[in-house]
Amino acid sequence: MDESAPRQERLVFAGLVGGAQVLGLASVVLTAVWMGHYRGGFSWDGSSFQFNVHPLCMVLGLVFLQGDAILVYRVFRNEAKRNVKILHGIIHLLALVVSIVGIVAVFDFHRAAKIPDMYSLHSWCGMLTIVLFCVQWVMGLMFFLFPVASSWLRASYLPVHVFCGLVLVVMSIGTSLLGITEKLLFSIMPSYSTFPAEGVLANVLGLVLVLFGVVLCYLITREEFKRPPNPEEESLSVHFKTLTEGGTPDSP
Amino acid sequence: MDESAPRQERLVFAGLVGGAQVLGLASVVLTAVWMGHYRGGFSWDGSSFQFNVHPLCMVLGLVFLQGDAILVYRVFRNEAKRNVKILHGIIHLLALVVSIVGIVAVFDFHRAAKIPDMYSLHSWCGMLTIVLFCVQWVMGLMFFLFPVASSWLRASYLPVHVFCGLVLVVMSIGTSLLGITEKLLFSIMPSYSTFPAEGVLANVLGLVLVLFGVVLCYLITREEFKRPPNPEEESLSVHFKTLTEGGTPDSP
Repeated sequence: MDESAPRQERLVFAGLVGGAQVLGLASVVLTAVWMGHYRGGFSWDGSSFQFNVHPLCMVLGLVFLQGDAILVYRVFRNEAKRNVKILHGIIHLLALVVSIVGIVAVFDFHRAAKIPDMYSLHSWCGMLTIVLFCVQWVMGLMFFLFPVASSWLRASYLPVHVFCGLVLVVMSIGTSLLGITEKLLFSIMPSYSTFPAEGVLANVLGLVLVLFGVVLCYLITREEFKRPPNPEEESLSVHFKTLTEGGTPDSP
Repeated sequence: MDESAPRQERLVFAGLVGGAQVLGLASVVLTAVWMGHYRGGFSWDGSSFQFNVHPLCMVLGLVFLQGDAILVYRVFRNEAKRNVKILHGIIHLLALVVSIVGIVAVFDFHRAAKIPDMYSLHSWCGMLTIVLFCVQWVMGLMFFLFPVASSWLRASYLPVHVFCGLVLVVMSIGTSLLGITEKLLFSIMPSYSTFPAEGVLANVLGLVLVLFGVVLCYLITREEFKRPPNPEEESLSVHFKTLTEGGTPDSP
Protein backbone atom coordinates (compact mmCIF):
# COMPACT_ATOMS: atom_id res chain seq x y z
CA MET A 1 0.00 0.00 0.00
CA ASP A 2 0.97 3.61 -0.58
CA GLU A 3 2.59 5.20 2.49
CA SER A 4 0.24 8.18 2.10
CA ALA A 5 -2.87 5.98 2.50
CA PRO A 6 -4.63 6.29 5.86
CA ARG A 7 -3.21 3.99 8.53
CA GLN A 8 -6.52 2.16 9.01
CA GLU A 9 -6.81 1.52 5.25
CA ARG A 10 -3.27 0.10 5.17
CA LEU A 11 -4.05 -2.16 8.12
CA VAL A 12 -7.24 -3.44 6.47
CA PHE A 13 -5.34 -4.06 3.22
CA ALA A 14 -2.51 -5.92 5.00
CA GLY A 15 -5.04 -7.98 6.97
CA LEU A 16 -6.97 -8.93 3.84
CA VAL A 17 -3.83 -9.84 1.85
CA GLY A 18 -2.58 -11.89 4.84
CA GLY A 19 -6.00 -13.51 5.15
CA ALA A 20 -6.02 -14.40 1.44
CA GLN A 21 -2.57 -16.03 1.76
CA VAL A 22 -3.62 -18.02 4.83
CA LEU A 23 -6.83 -19.18 3.09
CA GLY A 24 -5.03 -20.01 -0.17
CA LEU A 25 -2.30 -21.99 1.58
CA ALA A 26 -4.89 -23.68 3.82
CA SER A 27 -6.81 -24.85 0.75
CA VAL A 28 -3.63 -26.41 -0.73
CA VAL A 29 -2.71 -28.05 2.62
CA LEU A 30 -6.27 -29.37 3.17
CA THR A 31 -6.29 -30.87 -0.35
CA ALA A 32 -2.88 -32.48 0.27
CA VAL A 33 -4.06 -33.91 3.62
CA TRP A 34 -7.30 -35.21 2.07
CA MET A 35 -5.54 -36.91 -0.84
CA GLY A 36 -2.39 -37.88 1.12
CA HIS A 37 -3.95 -39.16 4.32
CA TYR A 38 -7.53 -40.20 3.49
CA ARG A 39 -7.08 -41.26 -0.17
CA GLY A 40 -3.75 -43.11 0.17
CA GLY A 41 -1.18 -40.65 -1.19
CA PHE A 42 0.31 -39.82 -4.58
CA SER A 43 1.99 -41.69 -7.43
CA TRP A 44 2.19 -41.65 -11.25
CA ASP A 45 1.23 -45.21 -12.20
CA GLY A 46 -2.30 -44.89 -13.59
CA SER A 47 -3.81 -45.93 -10.22
CA SER A 48 -6.18 -43.93 -8.02
CA PHE A 49 -3.03 -42.54 -6.36
CA GLN A 50 -2.29 -40.81 -9.67
CA PHE A 51 -5.82 -39.38 -9.65
CA ASN A 52 -4.91 -37.81 -6.28
CA VAL A 53 -2.38 -35.58 -8.06
CA HIS A 54 -5.29 -33.96 -9.94
CA PRO A 55 -7.09 -32.12 -7.08
CA LEU A 56 -3.80 -30.98 -5.55
CA CYS A 57 -2.48 -29.53 -8.82
CA MET A 58 -5.77 -27.84 -9.72
CA VAL A 59 -6.19 -26.16 -6.31
CA LEU A 60 -2.52 -25.12 -6.29
CA GLY A 61 -2.45 -23.97 -9.94
CA LEU A 62 -5.87 -22.67 -10.91
CA VAL A 63 -6.93 -21.34 -7.50
CA PHE A 64 -3.94 -20.34 -5.31
CA LEU A 65 -1.36 -19.41 -7.97
CA GLN A 66 -3.92 -17.81 -10.32
CA GLY A 67 -5.30 -15.81 -7.38
CA ASP A 68 -1.84 -14.66 -6.30
CA ALA A 69 -0.91 -13.78 -9.90
CA ILE A 70 -3.85 -11.35 -9.88
CA LEU A 71 -3.05 -10.09 -6.39
CA VAL A 72 0.46 -8.91 -7.34
CA TYR A 73 -1.17 -5.83 -8.94
CA ARG A 74 -2.43 -4.81 -5.51
CA VAL A 75 0.49 -5.96 -3.31
CA PHE A 76 3.15 -4.34 -5.55
CA ARG A 77 1.03 -1.37 -6.50
CA ASN A 78 3.92 1.04 -5.95
CA GLU A 79 6.53 -0.94 -7.91
CA ALA A 80 7.41 -0.33 -11.57
CA LYS A 81 4.47 -1.56 -13.62
CA ARG A 82 6.57 -3.47 -16.17
CA ASN A 83 8.12 -5.60 -13.38
CA VAL A 84 4.71 -6.31 -11.89
CA LYS A 85 3.39 -7.32 -15.32
CA ILE A 86 6.29 -9.75 -15.81
CA LEU A 87 5.69 -11.26 -12.34
CA HIS A 88 1.94 -11.51 -13.16
CA GLY A 89 2.77 -13.37 -16.41
CA ILE A 90 5.32 -15.68 -14.77
CA ILE A 91 3.01 -16.75 -11.91
CA HIS A 92 0.25 -17.35 -14.47
CA LEU A 93 2.63 -19.48 -16.55
CA LEU A 94 3.50 -21.47 -13.42
CA ALA A 95 -0.24 -21.86 -12.69
CA LEU A 96 -0.78 -23.12 -16.24
CA VAL A 97 2.06 -25.69 -16.04
CA VAL A 98 0.86 -27.02 -12.65
CA SER A 99 -2.73 -27.21 -13.96
CA ILE A 100 -1.67 -29.11 -17.09
CA VAL A 101 0.13 -31.68 -14.88
CA GLY A 102 -3.15 -32.00 -12.91
CA ILE A 103 -5.21 -32.49 -16.07
CA VAL A 104 -2.80 -35.06 -17.54
CA ALA A 105 -2.96 -36.93 -14.21
CA VAL A 106 -6.73 -37.40 -14.37
CA PHE A 107 -6.91 -38.21 -18.10
CA ASP A 108 -4.12 -40.79 -17.64
CA PHE A 109 -5.93 -42.32 -14.67
CA HIS A 110 -9.21 -42.47 -16.64
CA ARG A 111 -7.46 -44.22 -19.56
CA ALA A 112 -5.81 -46.80 -17.27
CA ALA A 113 -9.06 -47.43 -15.35
CA LYS A 114 -11.20 -47.33 -18.55
CA ILE A 115 -13.37 -44.52 -17.15
CA PRO A 116 -15.02 -42.31 -19.81
CA ASP A 117 -13.87 -38.68 -20.00
CA MET A 118 -15.78 -35.41 -20.06
CA TYR A 119 -19.27 -36.57 -19.08
CA SER A 120 -19.73 -34.72 -15.77
CA LEU A 121 -20.60 -31.09 -15.05
CA HIS A 122 -17.26 -30.86 -13.19
CA SER A 123 -15.37 -31.88 -16.32
CA TRP A 124 -17.37 -29.54 -18.56
CA CYS A 125 -16.78 -26.56 -16.25
CA GLY A 126 -13.13 -27.54 -15.76
CA MET A 127 -12.38 -27.85 -19.48
CA LEU A 128 -14.16 -24.55 -20.19
CA THR A 129 -12.10 -22.88 -17.44
CA ILE A 130 -8.73 -24.21 -18.60
CA VAL A 131 -9.40 -23.36 -22.27
CA LEU A 132 -10.48 -19.82 -21.37
CA PHE A 133 -7.47 -19.55 -19.01
CA CYS A 134 -5.15 -20.35 -21.94
CA VAL A 135 -6.93 -17.84 -24.21
CA GLN A 136 -6.72 -15.19 -21.46
CA TRP A 137 -3.00 -15.88 -20.92
CA VAL A 138 -2.13 -15.68 -24.64
CA MET A 139 -4.25 -12.54 -25.10
CA GLY A 140 -2.62 -10.92 -22.05
CA LEU A 141 0.83 -11.78 -23.39
CA MET A 142 0.07 -10.34 -26.84
CA PHE A 143 -1.72 -7.23 -25.63
CA PHE A 144 0.35 -6.23 -22.59
CA LEU A 145 3.80 -7.89 -22.50
CA PHE A 146 4.62 -7.94 -26.24
CA PRO A 147 2.11 -5.37 -27.43
CA VAL A 148 1.01 -6.15 -30.96
CA ALA A 149 -2.35 -4.38 -30.70
CA SER A 150 -2.95 -0.64 -31.06
CA SER A 151 -3.03 1.43 -27.89
CA TRP A 152 -6.78 2.02 -28.38
CA LEU A 153 -7.42 -1.73 -28.62
CA ARG A 154 -5.27 -2.38 -25.54
CA ALA A 155 -7.06 0.27 -23.49
CA SER A 156 -10.43 -1.20 -24.54
CA TYR A 157 -9.34 -4.74 -23.73
CA LEU A 158 -7.84 -3.98 -20.31
CA PRO A 159 -11.11 -3.88 -18.27
CA VAL A 160 -12.32 -7.02 -20.10
CA HIS A 161 -9.01 -8.75 -19.21
CA VAL A 162 -9.41 -7.79 -15.54
CA PHE A 163 -13.08 -8.92 -15.48
CA CYS A 164 -12.28 -12.23 -17.22
CA GLY A 165 -9.42 -12.87 -14.77
CA LEU A 166 -11.80 -12.66 -11.82
CA VAL A 167 -14.40 -14.78 -13.65
CA LEU A 168 -11.72 -17.44 -14.25
CA VAL A 169 -10.69 -17.56 -10.56
CA VAL A 170 -14.35 -17.84 -9.53
CA MET A 171 -14.96 -20.56 -12.16
CA SER A 172 -11.87 -22.42 -10.90
CA ILE A 173 -13.19 -22.31 -7.35
CA GLY A 174 -16.68 -23.40 -8.46
CA THR A 175 -15.19 -26.28 -10.47
CA SER A 176 -13.09 -27.30 -7.43
CA LEU A 177 -16.26 -27.43 -5.32
CA LEU A 178 -17.90 -29.65 -7.95
CA GLY A 179 -14.81 -31.87 -7.88
CA ILE A 180 -14.97 -32.13 -4.06
CA THR A 181 -18.64 -33.18 -4.23
CA GLU A 182 -17.96 -35.70 -7.02
CA LYS A 183 -14.98 -37.24 -5.22
CA LEU A 184 -16.89 -37.53 -1.92
CA LEU A 185 -19.92 -39.17 -3.56
CA PHE A 186 -17.73 -41.58 -5.56
CA SER A 187 -15.64 -42.49 -2.48
CA ILE A 188 -17.73 -42.30 0.68
CA MET A 189 -21.39 -41.98 -0.41
CA PRO A 190 -22.72 -44.56 2.11
CA SER A 191 -21.02 -42.92 5.11
CA TYR A 192 -20.98 -39.24 4.01
CA SER A 193 -24.25 -38.51 5.86
CA THR A 194 -22.75 -39.72 9.17
CA PHE A 195 -20.29 -36.78 9.19
CA PRO A 196 -17.04 -38.79 8.88
CA ALA A 197 -13.77 -36.86 9.34
CA GLU A 198 -12.97 -37.09 5.60
CA GLY A 199 -16.35 -35.61 4.62
CA VAL A 200 -16.08 -32.78 7.14
CA LEU A 201 -12.50 -32.00 6.06
CA ALA A 202 -13.52 -31.87 2.38
CA ASN A 203 -16.54 -29.65 3.19
CA VAL A 204 -14.28 -27.31 5.18
CA LEU A 205 -11.90 -27.23 2.19
CA GLY A 206 -14.89 -26.12 0.07
CA LEU A 207 -15.72 -23.27 2.45
CA VAL A 208 -12.04 -22.19 2.63
CA LEU A 209 -11.98 -22.01 -1.18
CA VAL A 210 -15.16 -19.89 -1.19
CA LEU A 211 -13.67 -17.52 1.43
CA PHE A 212 -10.42 -17.23 -0.56
CA GLY A 213 -12.46 -16.20 -3.62
CA VAL A 214 -14.50 -13.63 -1.68
CA VAL A 215 -11.43 -11.98 -0.09
CA LEU A 216 -9.57 -11.97 -3.42
CA CYS A 217 -12.48 -10.41 -5.34
CA TYR A 218 -12.92 -7.79 -2.59
CA LEU A 219 -9.22 -6.83 -2.74
CA ILE A 220 -9.26 -6.55 -6.53
CA THR A 221 -12.53 -4.62 -6.93
CA ARG A 222 -12.16 -2.03 -4.11
CA GLU A 223 -11.31 1.37 -5.55
CA GLU A 224 -8.95 2.35 -2.68
CA PHE A 225 -6.70 -0.68 -3.20
CA LYS A 226 -6.15 -0.04 -6.91
CA ARG A 227 -2.84 1.09 -8.37
CA PRO A 228 -2.65 4.88 -8.16
CA PRO A 229 -1.92 6.81 -11.38
CA ASN A 230 1.80 7.61 -11.59
CA PRO A 231 2.54 10.64 -13.82
CA GLU A 232 6.31 10.07 -13.65
CA GLU A 233 5.92 6.48 -14.84
CA GLU A 234 3.51 7.63 -17.54
CA SER A 235 5.94 10.17 -18.93
CA LEU A 236 8.87 7.73 -18.83
CA SER A 237 7.19 4.65 -20.27
CA VAL A 238 5.32 4.79 -23.56
CA HIS A 239 4.32 1.20 -22.95
CA PHE A 240 2.72 2.04 -19.62
CA LYS A 241 1.18 5.20 -21.06
CA THR A 242 -0.60 3.42 -23.88
CA LEU A 243 -1.89 0.81 -21.43
CA THR A 244 -3.55 3.35 -19.22
CA GLU A 245 -5.01 5.47 -22.00
CA GLY A 246 -8.76 5.58 -21.72
CA GLY A 247 -9.06 5.77 -17.95
CA THR A 248 -7.04 4.80 -14.92
CA PRO A 249 -10.03 3.39 -12.95
CA ASP A 250 -9.80 0.26 -15.12
CA SER A 251 -6.09 -0.17 -14.50
CA PRO A 252 -5.46 -3.62 -12.99
CA MET B 1 -29.98 3.36 -20.83
CA ASP B 2 -29.61 7.10 -21.02
CA GLU B 3 -30.69 8.50 -24.42
CA SER B 4 -27.43 10.47 -24.57
CA ALA B 5 -25.33 7.29 -24.40
CA PRO B 6 -23.69 6.24 -27.68
CA ARG B 7 -25.94 4.10 -29.88
CA GLN B 8 -23.49 1.19 -29.86
CA GLU B 9 -23.29 1.25 -26.03
CA ARG B 10 -27.09 1.20 -25.79
CA LEU B 11 -27.28 -1.74 -28.20
CA VAL B 12 -24.67 -3.69 -26.21
CA PHE B 13 -26.54 -2.94 -22.98
CA ALA B 14 -29.91 -4.02 -24.44
CA GLY B 15 -28.33 -7.18 -25.87
CA LEU B 16 -26.73 -8.10 -22.55
CA VAL B 17 -29.91 -7.44 -20.54
CA GLY B 18 -31.92 -9.47 -23.09
CA GLY B 19 -29.29 -12.22 -22.95
CA ALA B 20 -29.44 -12.30 -19.14
CA GLN B 21 -33.24 -12.65 -19.25
CA VAL B 22 -33.07 -15.47 -21.82
CA LEU B 23 -30.40 -17.29 -19.77
CA GLY B 24 -32.26 -16.77 -16.47
CA LEU B 25 -35.57 -17.98 -17.90
CA ALA B 26 -33.82 -20.88 -19.66
CA SER B 27 -32.30 -22.01 -16.33
CA VAL B 28 -35.77 -22.03 -14.70
CA VAL B 29 -37.34 -23.88 -17.68
CA LEU B 30 -34.49 -26.45 -17.83
CA THR B 31 -34.85 -27.12 -14.08
CA ALA B 32 -38.63 -27.53 -14.50
CA VAL B 33 -38.15 -29.92 -17.45
CA TRP B 34 -35.50 -31.93 -15.54
CA MET B 35 -37.65 -32.29 -12.42
CA GLY B 36 -41.00 -32.46 -14.25
CA HIS B 37 -40.09 -34.82 -17.09
CA TYR B 38 -37.07 -36.87 -15.94
CA ARG B 39 -37.72 -36.93 -12.16
CA GLY B 40 -41.50 -37.54 -12.24
CA GLY B 41 -43.00 -34.12 -11.49
CA PHE B 42 -43.99 -32.16 -8.42
CA SER B 43 -46.11 -32.73 -5.29
CA TRP B 44 -46.13 -31.83 -1.56
CA ASP B 45 -46.47 -35.23 0.11
CA GLY B 46 -42.99 -35.92 1.53
CA SER B 47 -42.07 -38.06 -1.49
CA SER B 48 -39.22 -37.48 -3.95
CA PHE B 49 -41.75 -35.46 -5.98
CA GLN B 50 -41.70 -32.96 -3.11
CA PHE B 51 -37.91 -32.89 -3.30
CA ASN B 52 -38.33 -31.80 -6.95
CA VAL B 53 -39.86 -28.52 -5.74
CA HIS B 54 -36.50 -27.68 -4.12
CA PRO B 55 -34.27 -27.18 -7.21
CA LEU B 56 -37.02 -25.31 -9.07
CA CYS B 57 -37.64 -22.86 -6.20
CA MET B 58 -33.93 -22.28 -5.54
CA VAL B 59 -33.08 -21.57 -9.19
CA LEU B 60 -36.15 -19.35 -9.54
CA GLY B 61 -35.68 -17.54 -6.22
CA LEU B 62 -31.99 -17.33 -5.40
CA VAL B 63 -30.67 -17.17 -8.97
CA PHE B 64 -33.18 -15.67 -11.42
CA LEU B 65 -35.18 -13.38 -9.09
CA GLN B 66 -32.15 -12.33 -7.02
CA GLY B 67 -30.27 -11.58 -10.25
CA ASP B 68 -33.15 -9.53 -11.66
CA ALA B 69 -33.57 -7.67 -8.35
CA ILE B 70 -29.97 -6.48 -8.74
CA LEU B 71 -30.41 -5.75 -12.45
CA VAL B 72 -33.26 -3.25 -11.88
CA TYR B 73 -30.60 -0.68 -10.87
CA ARG B 74 -29.20 -0.86 -14.39
CA VAL B 75 -32.40 -1.34 -16.41
CA PHE B 76 -34.25 1.51 -14.65
CA ARG B 77 -31.18 3.68 -14.22
CA ASN B 78 -33.08 6.79 -15.34
CA GLU B 79 -36.17 6.27 -13.14
CA ALA B 80 -36.62 7.88 -9.69
CA LYS B 81 -34.20 6.13 -7.35
CA ARG B 82 -36.76 5.64 -4.57
CA ASN B 83 -39.06 3.67 -6.90
CA VAL B 84 -36.16 1.52 -8.10
CA LYS B 85 -35.15 0.82 -4.49
CA ILE B 86 -38.70 -0.29 -3.64
CA LEU B 87 -38.78 -2.58 -6.71
CA HIS B 88 -35.33 -3.94 -5.71
CA GLY B 89 -36.64 -4.72 -2.20
CA ILE B 90 -39.91 -6.28 -3.44
CA ILE B 91 -38.21 -8.63 -5.93
CA HIS B 92 -35.73 -9.63 -3.21
CA LEU B 93 -38.63 -10.34 -0.83
CA LEU B 94 -40.25 -12.48 -3.53
CA ALA B 95 -36.91 -14.28 -4.03
CA LEU B 96 -36.73 -14.91 -0.27
CA VAL B 97 -40.28 -16.31 -0.07
CA VAL B 98 -39.75 -18.63 -3.07
CA SER B 99 -36.41 -19.79 -1.61
CA ILE B 100 -37.96 -20.54 1.79
CA VAL B 101 -40.61 -22.71 0.07
CA GLY B 102 -37.74 -24.54 -1.68
CA ILE B 103 -35.85 -25.07 1.59
CA VAL B 104 -38.95 -26.29 3.45
CA ALA B 105 -39.58 -28.73 0.57
CA VAL B 106 -36.20 -30.44 0.96
CA PHE B 107 -36.18 -30.51 4.80
CA ASP B 108 -39.72 -31.97 4.75
CA PHE B 109 -38.65 -34.61 2.23
CA HIS B 110 -35.57 -35.48 4.31
CA ARG B 111 -37.71 -35.89 7.44
CA ALA B 112 -40.23 -38.15 5.65
CA ALA B 113 -37.47 -40.25 4.04
CA LYS B 114 -35.32 -40.25 7.22
CA ILE B 115 -32.36 -38.72 5.37
CA PRO B 116 -29.95 -36.72 7.59
CA ASP B 117 -29.75 -32.96 6.99
CA MET B 118 -26.81 -30.65 6.46
CA TYR B 119 -23.99 -33.10 5.86
CA SER B 120 -23.04 -32.23 2.27
CA LEU B 121 -20.98 -29.36 0.88
CA HIS B 122 -24.08 -28.35 -1.11
CA SER B 123 -26.11 -28.01 2.09
CA TRP B 124 -23.33 -26.10 3.89
CA CYS B 125 -22.93 -23.64 1.00
CA GLY B 126 -26.70 -23.37 0.58
CA MET B 127 -27.38 -22.65 4.25
CA LEU B 128 -24.56 -20.09 4.37
CA THR B 129 -25.99 -18.40 1.26
CA ILE B 130 -29.58 -18.21 2.53
CA VAL B 131 -28.52 -16.93 5.99
CA LEU B 132 -26.30 -14.24 4.43
CA PHE B 133 -29.11 -13.42 1.96
CA CYS B 134 -31.47 -12.76 4.90
CA VAL B 135 -28.83 -10.63 6.68
CA GLN B 136 -28.21 -8.67 3.46
CA TRP B 137 -31.96 -8.13 2.92
CA VAL B 138 -32.58 -6.89 6.48
CA MET B 139 -29.47 -4.66 6.39
CA GLY B 140 -30.55 -3.22 3.02
CA LEU B 141 -34.03 -2.54 4.38
CA MET B 142 -32.69 -0.79 7.50
CA PHE B 143 -29.97 1.19 5.74
CA PHE B 144 -31.65 2.22 2.51
CA LEU B 145 -35.46 1.89 2.62
CA PHE B 146 -36.10 2.88 6.26
CA PRO B 147 -32.82 4.61 7.00
CA VAL B 148 -31.97 4.21 10.66
CA ALA B 149 -28.21 4.60 10.15
CA SER B 150 -26.33 7.88 9.77
CA SER B 151 -25.62 9.12 6.26
CA TRP B 152 -21.90 8.44 6.77
CA LEU B 153 -22.60 4.86 7.78
CA ARG B 154 -24.93 4.38 4.82
CA ALA B 155 -22.40 5.77 2.36
CA SER B 156 -19.73 3.46 3.80
CA TYR B 157 -22.03 0.44 3.68
CA LEU B 158 -23.28 0.97 0.11
CA PRO B 159 -20.26 -0.49 -1.78
CA VAL B 160 -20.15 -3.41 0.69
CA HIS B 161 -23.89 -4.01 0.06
CA VAL B 162 -23.31 -4.03 -3.73
CA PHE B 163 -20.28 -6.35 -3.43
CA CYS B 164 -22.13 -8.74 -1.10
CA GLY B 165 -25.11 -8.82 -3.47
CA LEU B 166 -22.92 -10.06 -6.31
CA VAL B 167 -21.16 -12.54 -3.99
CA LEU B 168 -24.57 -13.91 -2.97
CA VAL B 169 -25.71 -14.42 -6.58
CA VAL B 170 -22.43 -16.16 -7.43
CA MET B 171 -22.70 -18.32 -4.27
CA SER B 172 -26.29 -19.20 -5.24
CA ILE B 173 -25.14 -20.27 -8.70
CA GLY B 174 -22.22 -22.27 -7.26
CA THR B 175 -24.54 -23.99 -4.78
CA SER B 176 -26.97 -24.80 -7.62
CA LEU B 177 -24.13 -26.43 -9.55
CA LEU B 178 -23.27 -28.53 -6.47
CA GLY B 179 -26.94 -29.49 -6.21
CA ILE B 180 -27.02 -30.54 -9.88
CA THR B 181 -23.94 -32.77 -9.38
CA GLU B 182 -25.35 -34.27 -6.16
CA LYS B 183 -28.76 -35.00 -7.74
CA LEU B 184 -27.18 -36.60 -10.83
CA LEU B 185 -24.86 -38.82 -8.79
CA PHE B 186 -27.67 -39.86 -6.42
CA SER B 187 -30.07 -40.59 -9.32
CA ILE B 188 -28.14 -41.77 -12.40
CA MET B 189 -24.57 -42.53 -11.25
CA PRO B 190 -24.32 -45.87 -13.16
CA SER B 191 -25.45 -44.38 -16.48
CA TYR B 192 -24.16 -40.77 -16.14
CA SER B 193 -20.92 -41.61 -17.98
CA THR B 194 -22.86 -42.86 -21.05
CA PHE B 195 -24.12 -39.32 -21.74
CA PRO B 196 -27.87 -39.96 -21.15
CA ALA B 197 -30.29 -37.14 -22.10
CA GLU B 198 -30.97 -36.33 -18.43
CA GLY B 199 -27.26 -35.96 -17.64
CA VAL B 200 -26.60 -33.77 -20.68
CA LEU B 201 -29.66 -31.60 -19.90
CA ALA B 202 -28.52 -31.10 -16.30
CA ASN B 203 -24.95 -30.28 -17.42
CA VAL B 204 -26.33 -27.75 -19.92
CA LEU B 205 -28.41 -26.25 -17.09
CA GLY B 206 -25.16 -25.85 -15.14
CA LEU B 207 -23.47 -24.00 -18.01
CA VAL B 208 -26.53 -21.77 -18.54
CA LEU B 209 -26.39 -20.80 -14.83
CA VAL B 210 -22.67 -19.97 -15.15
CA LEU B 211 -23.34 -17.82 -18.23
CA PHE B 212 -26.22 -16.03 -16.46
CA GLY B 213 -23.84 -15.18 -13.60
CA VAL B 214 -21.10 -13.92 -15.94
CA VAL B 215 -23.46 -11.67 -17.94
CA LEU B 216 -25.08 -10.34 -14.75
CA CYS B 217 -21.73 -9.54 -13.08
CA TYR B 218 -20.50 -7.84 -16.27
CA LEU B 219 -23.64 -5.66 -16.46
CA ILE B 220 -23.35 -4.65 -12.79
CA THR B 221 -19.62 -3.94 -12.69
CA ARG B 222 -19.16 -2.00 -15.98
CA GLU B 223 -18.72 1.70 -15.28
CA GLU B 224 -20.68 2.85 -18.36
CA PHE B 225 -23.84 0.96 -17.32
CA LYS B 226 -23.97 2.48 -13.83
CA ARG B 227 -26.62 4.97 -12.75
CA PRO B 228 -25.48 8.47 -13.75
CA PRO B 229 -25.35 11.15 -11.01
CA ASN B 230 -28.57 13.20 -11.09
CA PRO B 231 -28.10 16.69 -9.57
CA GLU B 232 -31.87 17.42 -9.72
CA GLU B 233 -32.70 14.26 -7.80
CA GLU B 234 -29.93 15.02 -5.32
CA SER B 235 -31.28 18.47 -4.57
CA LEU B 236 -34.88 17.25 -4.29
CA SER B 237 -34.34 14.16 -2.20
CA VAL B 238 -32.47 14.31 1.08
CA HIS B 239 -32.80 10.54 1.24
CA PHE B 240 -31.09 10.06 -2.11
CA LYS B 241 -28.51 12.70 -1.26
CA THR B 242 -27.39 11.03 1.95
CA LEU B 243 -27.15 7.72 0.12
CA THR B 244 -24.79 9.03 -2.49
CA GLU B 245 -22.58 11.02 -0.13
CA GLY B 246 -19.04 9.75 -0.28
CA GLY B 247 -18.78 9.10 -4.01
CA THR B 248 -21.13 8.30 -6.87
CA PRO B 249 -18.91 5.57 -8.40
CA ASP B 250 -20.15 3.22 -5.67
CA SER B 251 -23.79 3.96 -6.36
CA PRO B 252 -25.60 0.69 -7.13
